[in-house]
Amino acid sequence: MRIIECVPNVSEGRRTEVIQAMVACLRAQPGVLLLDYHSDPDHNRTVFTLIGDDPALIRAMRELYRLAVEHIDMRKHRGEHPRAGAVDVCPFVPIAGVTMDDCVALARELGQQIAETFRIPVFLYAEAATKEDRRLLPNIRKGEFEGWFEKIRDPNWQPDFGPAEVHPTAGITVIGARPPLIAYNVNLGTNHLDIAKRIARGVRFSSGGFRHVQAAGFALKERDQVQVSMNLLNFRETPIHRVFEVIKAEAERYGVPVVGSEIVGLIPLEALVQVADFYLRLEGFQMDQILEWKIQQVLFERLTGTTE
Amino acid sequence: MRIIECVPNVSEGRRTEVIQAMVACLRAQPGVLLLDYHSDPDHNRTVFTLIGDDPALIRAMRELYRLAVEHIDMRKHRGEHPRAGAVDVCPFVPIAGVTMDDCVALARELGQQIAETFRIPVFLYAEAATKEDRRLLPNIRKGEFEGWFEKIRDPNWQPDFGPAEVHPTAGITVIGARPPLIAYNVNLGTNHLDIAKRIARGVRFSSGGFRHVQAAGFALKERDQVQVSMNLLNFRETPIHRVFEVIKAEAERYGVPVVGSEIVGLIPLEALVQVADFYLRLEGFQMDQILEWKIQQVLFERLTGTTE
Repeated sequence: MRIIECVPNVSEGRRTEVIQAMVACLRAQPGVLLLDYHSDPDHNRTVFTLIGDDPALIRAMRELYRLAVEHIDMRKHRGEHPRAGAVDVCPFVPIAGVTMDDCVALARELGQQIAETFRIPVFLYAEAATKEDRRLLPNIRKGEFEGWFEKIRDPNWQPDFGPAEVHPTAGITVIGARPPLIAYNVNLGTNHLDIAKRIARGVRFSSGGFRHVQAAGFALKERDQVQVSMNLLNFRETPIHRVFEVIKAEAERYGVPVVGSEIVGLIPLEALVQVADFYLRLEGFQMDQILEWKIQQVLFERLTGTTE
Repeated sequence: MRIIECVPNVSEGRRTEVIQAMVACLRAQPGVLLLDYHSDPDHNRTVFTLIGDDPALIRAMRELYRLAVEHIDMRKHRGEHPRAGAVDVCPFVPIAGVTMDDCVALARELGQQIAETFRIPVFLYAEAATKEDRRLLPNIRKGEFEGWFEKIRDPNWQPDFGPAEVHPTAGITVIGARPPLIAYNVNLGTNHLDIAKRIARGVRFSSGGFRHVQAAGFALKERDQVQVSMNLLNFRETPIHRVFEVIKAEAERYGVPVVGSEIVGLIPLEALVQVADFYLRLEGFQMDQILEWKIQQVLFERLTGTTE
């Protein structure tokens, strides 16, 4: 079985009718399954998670870009989360029976089509990056939509596909391939934004923190609290519990409690097992001790005759 | 899909050739899948986990009893774990598409057949119990194999099926139906058995602890450590992390560290998610945020056309 995951981040998290039009469009695509979507009004951003095969995902993404270009005007977009385009970023993630190289090829193919069809400058990132300083998304996004009109004149920031001109309403877009990512937020019992920002600096790679962590501090106005919002780029090397414990200790230093944490969208089972394993100090625990996992595997082995 | 789990506990955890004969026998049974087995030499006990449909499980269990009667002589059996028979206990557990009543009926059917075929006294327990004081396994097992020759003369301890006479080499057997159980051990960095026993008394129901916990203290001679060995009978009401934290706190009172813990055999996915949820203080986490779970569900919905 061949499964590729695709996780477009769209710069709209408030207008229900636009979000629902996108959901309906993605659900109607043959060969694609919409697993999840999560809209955040503070971030003014929606994250979709799809799985499917190569041509079906390309078709579905073209339709999503079409709706985003039609409905989103970046000149009017405001939100807590940094963004540089209507479809801000679109990574392909190898899940099963597919290599990272397959996903890189898919990113290039989609990038070419989007540039040609919509005249949006396309930048390839992560494993699909064509230059070292395009590997990390924040490097590309720096300056955001508003700053890109200037940034795109820099010879070092010519797009991988499409015109050297920012789309007037849709901005730029970033497409790539990467391992599974966990969007993880920790909420603090204070409204002091500087504390969240200081803790974010402490855990993120760019300022001396964990190698596979991107982090920023945000205000959660509706809750009168602040949040350390993160992307965990490689949970096998930098697991959730290690990041959580450092944030808890740093917050304590300010007399601030961790009131909760939040997994945004989907998480690989293995990442949750890591957490239970750490806190319970498990000895010798194996994934196939999980009843549902084991039943599925044994049934699959029986069906395919690969049991010993 | 109809899935019943069956978890026979056999009083042999040392002789590899006997254990392997049982494994081979269970693997050869049509309609039954051996998901897991776990032998413990200190306990001198092996726990098998099977799934299957009703008649296949009955057939497979008859064969397991046959091998146990043939190879195990309880007069020579020594081990840390209490036991009263060669097949000490055999519960049926409803997993999917099946009720507790179905499992109770299955326990009665197997009990009748085992009593008739092997002349072993059969006691029904848990949800299949015929008397209130037979609901809890330790009540039935009290006195163990050696004590049962006396205990069976008590009019209150007449078997549910079979002769009122202990089988000379196979003892008695306990058959029943229950919700999913987690076998969970916590290992302590000391060789003082009394500390493990005192902590066990603190967490188990029978002496004032958690409602759904059975616990005992054991010596782990090979490791020069001691263990609080438990059955968690209802992880939804008494979750793992709560029991673990109490044991950690009680051990600290003796200056003893918790060096590790161990899940024996299989565990429902939901029980691990509870643990991650607790320690990460998750807000609003749902099982279907787990990627593998979600893919399986969405594919299943697509196949059966139950999506909206």
